[in-house]
Amino acid sequence: MLKKQADTIRFLCADMVQKANSGHPGAPMGLADVMVVLMKFLNHNPKNPNWLNRDRLVFSGGHASSLVYSFLHLSGYDLSLDELKKFRQLGSLTPGHPEIHTKGVEVATGPLGQGVANAVGFAMAAKYAANLLNEPNNEVINHKIYCLCGDGDLQEGISYEACAIAGNLSLNNLVLIYDSNNITIEGDTSIAWSEDVKVRFEAQGWDVARIDGHDYDQIEFALEQAKEREKPYLIIANTRIAKGAGELEGSHHSHGAPLGEEIIRAAKEAAGFDPGLKFTIDEDVLLRFRAAIEKGDLAEALWNKQVENLSNEGKKLLNSLLNPEISKINFPDFAGKKVATRDSNGVIINEIAKALPGFIGGSADLAPSNKTELKGMGDFPNGRNIHFGIREHAMAAINNSFARYGLFLPFSATFFIFSDYLKPSARIAALMGVKHFFILTHDSIGVGEDGPTHQPIEQLSTLRAMPNFYTFRPADGNENVECWKVALNLNAPSAFVLSRQGLEPLNSGEFGSVEKGAYLLKSTSDAKITLVASGSEVSLCVKTADTLNALGIGVNVVSAPCFDLLCEQPKDYVDKILDPATNIVAVEAASALEWYKFADIVYGMKSFGESGKADDLFDYFGFSPEKLVKFIKDLVK
Amino acid sequence: MLKKQADTIRFLCADMVQKANSGHPGAPMGLADVMVVLMKFLNHNPKNPNWLNRDRLVFSGGHASSLVYSFLHLSGYDLSLDELKKFRQLGSLTPGHPEIHTKGVEVATGPLGQGVANAVGFAMAAKYAANLLNEPNNEVINHKIYCLCGDGDLQEGISYEACAIAGNLSLNNLVLIYDSNNITIEGDTSIAWSEDVKVRFEAQGWDVARIDGHDYDQIEFALEQAKEREKPYLIIANTRIAKGAGELEGSHHSHGAPLGEEIIRAAKEAAGFDPGLKFTIDEDVLLRFRAAIEKGDLAEALWNKQVENLSNEGKKLLNSLLNPEISKINFPDFAGKKVATRDSNGVIINEIAKALPGFIGGSADLAPSNKTELKGMGDFPNGRNIHFGIREHAMAAINNSFARYGLFLPFSATFFIFSDYLKPSARIAALMGVKHFFILTHDSIGVGEDGPTHQPIEQLSTLRAMPNFYTFRPADGNENVECWKVALNLNAPSAFVLSRQGLEPLNSGEFGSVEKGAYLLKSTSDAKITLVASGSEVSLCVKTADTLNALGIGVNVVSAPCFDLLCEQPKDYVDKILDPATNIVAVEAASALEWYKFADIVYGMKSFGESGKADDLFDYFGFSPEKLVKFIKDLVK
Repeated sequence: MLKKQADTIRFLCADMVQKANSGHPGAPMGLADVMVVLMKFLNHNPKNPNWLNRDRLVFSGGHASSLVYSFLHLSGYDLSLDELKKFRQLGSLTPGHPEIHTKGVEVATGPLGQGVANAVGFAMAAKYAANLLNEPNNEVINHKIYCLCGDGDLQEGISYEACAIAGNLSLNNLVLIYDSNNITIEGDTSIAWSEDVKVRFEAQGWDVARIDGHDYDQIEFALEQAKEREKPYLIIANTRIAKGAGELEGSHHSHGAPLGEEIIRAAKEAAGFDPGLKFTIDEDVLLRFRAAIEKGDLAEALWNKQVENLSNEGKKLLNSLLNPEISKINFPDFAGKKVATRDSNGVIINEIAKALPGFIGGSADLAPSNKTELKGMGDFPNGRNIHFGIREHAMAAINNSFARYGLFLPFSATFFIFSDYLKPSARIAALMGVKHFFILTHDSIGVGEDGPTHQPIEQLSTLRAMPNFYTFRPADGNENVECWKVALNLNAPSAFVLSRQGLEPLNSGEFGSVEKGAYLLKSTSDAKITLVASGSEVSLCVKTADTLNALGIGVNVVSAPCFDLLCEQPKDYVDKILDPATNIVAVEAASALEWYKFADIVYGMKSFGESGKADDLFDYFGFSPEKLVKFIKDLVK
Repeated sequence: MLKKQADTIRFLCADMVQKANSGHPGAPMGLADVMVVLMKFLNHNPKNPNWLNRDRLVFSGGHASSLVYSFLHLSGYDLSLDELKKFRQLGSLTPGHPEIHTKGVEVATGPLGQGVANAVGFAMAAKYAANLLNEPNNEVINHKIYCLCGDGDLQEGISYEACAIAGNLSLNNLVLIYDSNNITIEGDTSIAWSEDVKVRFEAQGWDVARIDGHDYDQIEFALEQAKEREKPYLIIANTRIAKGAGELEGSHHSHGAPLGEEIIRAAKEAAGFDPGLKFTIDEDVLLRFRAAIEKGDLAEALWNKQVENLSNEGKKLLNSLLNPEISKINFPDFAGKKVATRDSNGVIINEIAKALPGFIGGSADLAPSNKTELKGMGDFPNGRNIHFGIREHAMAAINNSFARYGLFLPFSATFFIFSDYLKPSARIAALMGVKHFFILTHDSIGVGEDGPTHQPIEQLSTLRAMPNFYTFRPADGNENVECWKVALNLNAPSAFVLSRQGLEPLNSGEFGSVEKGAYLLKSTSDAKITLVASGSEVSLCVKTADTLNALGIGVNVVSAPCFDLLCEQPKDYVDKILDPATNIVAVEAASALEWYKFADIVYGMKSFGESGKADDLFDYFGFSPEKLVKFIKDLVK
């Protein structure tokens, strides 16, 4: 029966790819045998994809999406056979790579290596959830995390980073199944890949098994072994790509293109299936798979009893993790205080953490510089300060999983310049629309002596160009507070771009319009110029405006902590703050070209920075009141 | 004497950081002992930093820049003691992290992990140079590559990727010295780092030695062992951070801040140095270090004789590597041909490779999709097709070193979406201003069924926002040719953003203005609208203009293959092609906000893409002639 189940998956996947005339049949067919055995072990409830204590199953090789959808349909998730027939078509629930609008998909995957790091993230989230919620003789969190990955995932640096963290933390709830088929797009893996994967993982603190990925007994034995361990567990499953696809079995030509009608017919015939039928699921096979529904229903019912048996404190904690009460945050007040926004941010996140038990995160080894230590809250997994090591990319992917876990509001911190290192994961956060907070300090040439390798120039533009991602660059401590109030309510990731250097407080009693992205900070009735700026350049603009107003040149100043939100405002609001009758000059120590959307002139950075004292650099690059005043005076001449 | 030499370096570094009141004394002091022994082994010529057969020395931990500058000054490079005293000041040759405008710096480092991959790149470049140039009994290329790195470098995924490649290629000319001091910024490395580095590297095909990094005999023995090997060689040097700095020795507080005058005085005293003196180099020490000048001069003289003894073919080849003759490229003609630009690009780079023996590169396992195979030119290291594996980040850093080696014009290829994975290295290419060509195919929602994880949206903005980087997105095969002609002559990296799908040929006999970034493709005397576009959207605009012109709405069309070059043009040129009297609409299937610099309206992407057939997606997101015609008609109403 396992063979017939696996073949059913194989041909479903082959048929999907063939009908779409697009997709990747090789990996799903190679993994089908592993999949049918894994499905026996999986503790989940297809009728409630959000059950908290379900096992998480991550398909890191997102190109094997036909396998994902076959798994979901066969298990009884809310995904019809019709959707499988619309594989990779516009508007379907079966896109080319799995996305979370399909119920049962834990995390969007596709860019290689991400899923492995996501799996480590789920394992970490589960560890912390267990640490918080489990009580003596009542383990409400005790699920496993399974991840299927391929050669490409393990070649990507992000997976190495994440697996190092998994080993360091002894994540014994994590089972990584490596589909080792020796095939990559350019040919045999040996052209670029000759490491001893077993030894590599052992060096990182993992247990490793090696099995024949087409031998059901071996697969079962390995998964049985995975149950009780001290360390994360890697199962190297030697497989044949496109197993069962006749002459294309073992060939890299099966990786990313339909097999062809002829091959599929022959393969079905060889497996004892009717070659004339497509998308076939025999009743006996379906029955076997669909047993997952009853099993899952029972498991969740038993678990609900466990939750009932939690102590009152436990129930209360669970409830506050499930429903974070943002209104309970005791936000600080920085009125009149000159403060670096990295510092104000540090105070703010400590207050958030006090109010929200699910607020958790860490830095890629820069916590003292990023000011992200959650004071007195201990180190992960016993506490909420995660030491990610110098691994920005894995950090962000791991925190994507914290955000998807169901209980947590994670943050990732590093220098703004190193947001480049984690960008691919930030993008997936945006695609999924999860609350994941990026704390990015040292935000401009204000970095100073560390020089151009450490001074962001194009990074603001990079983040702002990304859909469904909100970048906040507050101008002082209180604006920083307002930005958090907005960000916590967005269904999207956001970034806090923060200064290393102290920023003068704005003389504004009111920040009500941070939610609109920008607001009029200072206005005169006869303005000829509007200066719009963010972060450290706002007070520069205020000083410049004061000087110019005294000279009789009317200048308005707009503080724009969030360009992305401003883009969402109607024209009348934009025109109200950025008066079209004035010459609008955007001032940012960044490339800032996107400001041309609103501004007539962008006063930004046209080159990389330099190494020198921050004040010297701001002056050198024109960001001093004297130089900006001169620029505006020349402009209105 | 070694001890005194090392202490001289220590206190030079400590004095530099103290005087600058900024910098990182810990790593330089910890590495000083290794450094003085390594300097004995180093085969280089301080008076000619460009000598081709010099050993390459890469400081991956660029924050140890005071060590770099001490090394350069003491060895006799063109870097005065006065410059060391101006450490980290604006305009000095001693910036916070090493940059290549300082003679003797092989590659700009700072962002962690990059330097390790750069070292692998130099080792690969040397292998290929040796393969090309060495003749029986005349090894004109036989130098070593040394790289100093720290914990942070080895935690970053890029270093893992690069070291996997080094192992796979058995780069026995590579010596990586790991400064293992157990200290990171957040504290002891064990908080995030517990892998067995020795075993990890052995698993990747390296030989590994472990030594006391303060024991001169052990350092010398290890470097002696490094000379003749079959594999790349890792020396794990156990060190104390800030060795010799009294109470700060071994403390993470010594990593990124000046030690303080008191500590330095005491340390000097303890080492037998005059605590009252700063920037001291005793004559005997200087003499010992400066022996490098005579030794280097002799080595290069001997090497020059070797070059004289090369065969005529060898001399000719060396000359054509040193002086690539771009004029000899036989560029293809795609006139009238509908072609995907990834395909036209494949033909072009094959012609470039035929003409230029130093043109070399590869893909991150996507060569068949990127169309980057150099046909009939074999696989690296015997040929020019490098199989990087699924390792975009290491690929780009490795090719930065090919570009810096002195003989090569490298290219890196992947899907455009995965330019995110390699961005940090592309940035360093831009900072250094090296010729490094990024071939980025599958450039928009035209990717089709693979869906939003694989469809670039913000990537054009990301690259365009980066200083000193040129992004070309040609509209057809012949424009693709013209883009290459321009790019090959730039002293900067460039990217080719190319379509998966076929593009209609433009009916333009003349592309003379690609060097200006954009040109008028189609004009009418009574234009009300100017459409400006790049890549696949140009022919959409041509079709739209044809329809609208027939309806009596005058439309000009500007093809803009390179936004960055357009930004460099004077206003009169811009106004000539983008007539300010018209309503200027930029059309790009991308976020494209930077186009507001020139356009009144941007007709772009406001969200991520979708999974579906490419034609369906273009229509769905408004990039069909019908929808664009309607948009313009509404606009002029």
